[in-house]
Amino acid sequence: MAATFTLDSLNSLSETAFVGAVGDIFEHAPWVAEGAAGRRPFPTVTALHDAMVAVVRESPAERQLAFIRAHPELGSKVKRLDWTTESQSEQGSLGLDRLSDAEFTKFSDLNKAYREKFGFPFIICVRRHTRDSILRQFERRLANDADAERKAALDEIALITRLRLVDKVDGPGKPKTTGRISTHVLDNVSGQPAQGVTISLYEVGASARSLLAKAVTNSDGRTDQPFVAGEPLRIGTYELQFEVAAYFAANKTVQADPAFLGIVPIRFSVAEAEGHYHVPLLVTPWSYSTYRGS
Amino acid sequence: MAATFTLDSLNSLSETAFVGAVGDIFEHAPWVAEGAAGRRPFPTVTALHDAMVAVVRESPAERQLAFIRAHPELGSKVKRLDWTTESQSEQGSLGLDRLSDAEFTKFSDLNKAYREKFGFPFIICVRRHTRDSILRQFERRLANDADAERKAALDEIALITRLRLVDKVDGPGKPKTTGRISTHVLDNVSGQPAQGVTISLYEVGASARSLLAKAVTNSDGRTDQPFVAGEPLRIGTYELQFEVAAYFAANKTVQADPAFLGIVPIRFSVAEAEGHYHVPLLVTPWSYSTYRGS
Amino acid sequence: MAATFTLDSLNSLSETAFVGAVGDIFEHAPWVAEGAAGRRPFPTVTALHDAMVAVVRESPAERQLAFIRAHPELGSKVKRLDWTTESQSEQGSLGLDRLSDAEFTKFSDLNKAYREKFGFPFIICVRRHTRDSILRQFERRLANDADAERKAALDEIALITRLRLVDKVDGPGKPKTTGRISTHVLDNVSGQPAQGVTISLYEVGASARSLLAKAVTNSDGRTDQPFVAGEPLRIGTYELQFEVAAYFAANKTVQADPAFLGIVPIRFSVAEAEGHYHVPLLVTPWSYSTYRGS
Amino acid sequence: MAATFTLDSLNSLSETAFVGAVGDIFEHAPWVAEGAAGRRPFPTVTALHDAMVAVVRESPAERQLAFIRAHPELGSKVKRLDWTTESQSEQGSLGLDRLSDAEFTKFSDLNKAYREKFGFPFIICVRRHTRDSILRQFERRLANDADAERKAALDEIALITRLRLVDKVDGPGKPKTTGRISTHVLDNVSGQPAQGVTISLYEVGASARSLLAKAVTNSDGRTDQPFVAGEPLRIGTYELQFEVAAYFAANKTVQADPAFLGIVPIRFSVAEAEGHYHVPLLVTPWSYSTYRGS
Repeated sequence: MAATFTLDSLNSLSETAFVGAVGDIFEHAPWVAEGAAGRRPFPTVTALHDAMVAVVRESPAERQLAFIRAHPELGSKVKRLDWTTESQSEQGSLGLDRLSDAEFTKFSDLNKAYREKFGFPFIICVRRHTRDSILRQFERRLANDADAERKAALDEIALITRLRLVDKVDGPGKPKTTGRISTHVLDNVSGQPAQGVTISLYEVGASARSLLAKAVTNSDGRTDQPFVAGEPLRIGTYELQFEVAAYFAANKTVQADPAFLGIVPIRFSVAEAEGHYHVPLLVTPWSYSTYRGS
Repeated sequence: MAATFTLDSLNSLSETAFVGAVGDIFEHAPWVAEGAAGRRPFPTVTALHDAMVAVVRESPAERQLAFIRAHPELGSKVKRLDWTTESQSEQGSLGLDRLSDAEFTKFSDLNKAYREKFGFPFIICVRRHTRDSILRQFERRLANDADAERKAALDEIALITRLRLVDKVDGPGKPKTTGRISTHVLDNVSGQPAQGVTISLYEVGASARSLLAKAVTNSDGRTDQPFVAGEPLRIGTYELQFEVAAYFAANKTVQADPAFLGIVPIRFSVAEAEGHYHVPLLVTPWSYSTYRGS
Repeated sequence: MAATFTLDSLNSLSETAFVGAVGDIFEHAPWVAEGAAGRRPFPTVTALHDAMVAVVRESPAERQLAFIRAHPELGSKVKRLDWTTESQSEQGSLGLDRLSDAEFTKFSDLNKAYREKFGFPFIICVRRHTRDSILRQFERRLANDADAERKAALDEIALITRLRLVDKVDGPGKPKTTGRISTHVLDNVSGQPAQGVTISLYEVGASARSLLAKAVTNSDGRTDQPFVAGEPLRIGTYELQFEVAAYFAANKTVQADPAFLGIVPIRFSVAEAEGHYHVPLLVTPWSYSTYRGS
Repeated sequence: MAATFTLDSLNSLSETAFVGAVGDIFEHAPWVAEGAAGRRPFPTVTALHDAMVAVVRESPAERQLAFIRAHPELGSKVKRLDWTTESQSEQGSLGLDRLSDAEFTKFSDLNKAYREKFGFPFIICVRRHTRDSILRQFERRLANDADAERKAALDEIALITRLRLVDKVDGPGKPKTTGRISTHVLDNVSGQPAQGVTISLYEVGASARSLLAKAVTNSDGRTDQPFVAGEPLRIGTYELQFEVAAYFAANKTVQADPAFLGIVPIRFSVAEAEGHYHVPLLVTPWSYSTYRGS
């Protein structure tokens, strides 16, 4: 989404116009923008967001609770889907609308248990998580006590609103909200970058996997674009698949028949939504290495 | 199968008894044993087998052809099976009785085309191949001309009968008919063999995968037994899955949450049924290497 | 050396002025510039150089030979030096003025034999070679026949004059005459670039080694500047030494006492003077990998 | 040295004969054997040694001190040696009789300071240490207080006498007193063990290096014998040098000229005199890995 405001303009708007501009960033809570308005001007977008979060954190406990309660149920976005071979190769992340039967049941049970225990809906910054990671967080946070969980909910709201603000406002000092997945293939037989290797990136869920992107390496052994960039990474598990037998065959490098290494899968998990996951492959027809690079 | 004869006894039996003992090794062709009987004694089991194969190769073309034709259709063993999630985790090799719909159709088409082109059944040493490898060979050999294919069929018969003879006869100089798949895990953080890593070996077919074996590494970072040994390896694709996050967690090695490496899959193909595929893993929470070792 | 002419100005000078400007690029041979003057204008510096080289190659054989003969003896720059422990750590390349006794003798013998065989001095683009590489080329080229060696001498003159022209002229399409040696250190225990690793680069000669550069890795695990850049690499052997035990100690990573890996030496040879030699280190206290990267 | 007694015979000898047999194991202290004689029989050689050590540790402080004082000065074995290029390639460990001037001075200073501080000679199990490691221990232990150092001296005496006992007595339960250095070379281009690689093992001292062993790999990519075995490893630094360019050239594997990797040096330190240091090399013409294996 293109930014529609600049930090400068937000700093100089009337209070009413400021609240009109950013009042919907915190769910049903224009009072957050109202509270931050008087603290203007802000030198950075990060400072603006920090101030808004401070308004929430400084508000009385009951107000915080009402604010949390006003968030929508995550459950309303959940759908079960019978995965077929066809749908498994469908592109795009495995969202909450594509759960297996078992996951759907698990999700419903967690939702009910959470509501009963805490009296407010489970809040999580969905854009930073895969489906599996949401379920994992759900299970973990259900074990919290009420205070810890209120804190956890507010932390997630801070992450959600940070993304919303960054989408809406341009200016200096924007917080880093994007991650990156990239790779690099080195051919250790020729001592050259491996050009022409087809690579697929999959999201690997407990019940299904989904193709996120496919690309071919250039003369530097890299893909012209990172596999994922410009948005937060979804915390969860991924798999890069490198078609190395086809690459070596095209380069007339001697291989067995069938090749010892056909498709090399590198499975890894993302823990930092804003991290750079550079996952290279050093390869010969009989060996390979991978590591988290930089 | 326990051997029931020794080379010594075969060397000293009457011709009739010799044919009674090994006459069924070549399908419906006691004349092979008859032809080899007079060439006794043999110093090794390999020499005995070579002599029997020579009898076939030295026989007139029509006799060879009739001999080839007398082999059963591979098609009779073929069954389609709808793979479900449950059946995919079933143990054991993916045989010809567990084909997907698409594979079954492909197989039937190949069978028909082969019969029409060559006038004899497709013969392959099934014990040395996975289902996928059989289909691949089928497609390749269909492109042969009649002479090349007659030769290919006799080569496979030699492999089949070699296994039968080895099963039946004990003695010096048995040909190597067994392969081995093994692994070794080194923890490059501690500089020690990785003890307690759970490893699964899968056969990876085009339409399904099947768990062949599961084991835990001992104090030398190896499994007490090789994953496969004592029989020919089936030419085809395999995957070792190493549960490294659980291993490092048990050893209190710092990892991300979730761990960068959860389960490490190493996919490789076997090209030599009698080869030793030693496929080690050198691993830290952030990197790994593998290679064909020895 | 700063460039003193632009391609534009060379293209528009009078013929006399042009010869005055670049006439000394080819040793005692202003006729080369004279021959190229009429072919102006040149779109690139490379085209200018190609034209000058063509003038030489198109000249009669006797003229070429006289031109080659007019080059100075390499031998005049040669000195023997008794290496002591102190002098071995002296900085800078191991030049021809720092030969061991054995090398000096070898060099003198080669020089004499070459003169006798070919009747002209041994010519080599010294800026693209280490001392050891010069001696190696000397031995190889001595085995050439007269024609091949005349060609080899002209090839080296082309390399020498290309460097002189690039030093003297600025403009579009300058040929690539520089190489690069760089590194990158990844800590596979932490999954992070290794910051604070002290690295030394040595030139490794047959009779001595010399420290060329020393640097410490930054937060990206790289050195702020490449170890060598902006000039041709000298073909020959190098060694990077990484002080990894000190790095891991500073980061409180558990190591043996003494550490299994103290200083890691990576020895490699440069074959392309204009190449990029990126030689990374992936390291834990118990393992490392290196490779030619990109 | 061949063992001259069996544990059985020691267990059944008269007390006098027992003391005659093993009374010299502890320096000028037959009372140690006398004290242990009455505790016979011992089920293992280790138990015998433990008993002898216990006799020392249970003896009064003055007796312990007198016993320590009765040990010879390490200094008497020390000699300075001007290392020349020739002597550096001499075979065998860098002993205390081959010190550089600086090391000789350092050693003399340490010896004097130690004597003055503790009143007894510096004792160390020389067979478990290189020269550099002895100097390092000397410096460290000089910083101890008197109690800690008396304990350190007795620990070293236990190590010294354990080796003497193991040399002299055969029987069950001998303590492990030997280490091992071995390697294994895998060619990752061919997927085979690298046969025919020449490997040299050097001891790397601060002032010199010395060739300990040289061998060529067999068809399994190993040397027929470990580089060191059957004795304690000397704690210190070593370097394996693998002649990989020659290997790849012999196998017609494409390399640069000169080869990117000529001789690959792997430098590592031994910290456990009784450890197994298996240090493999996985190599292509453009990359390699090493690690402590098992």
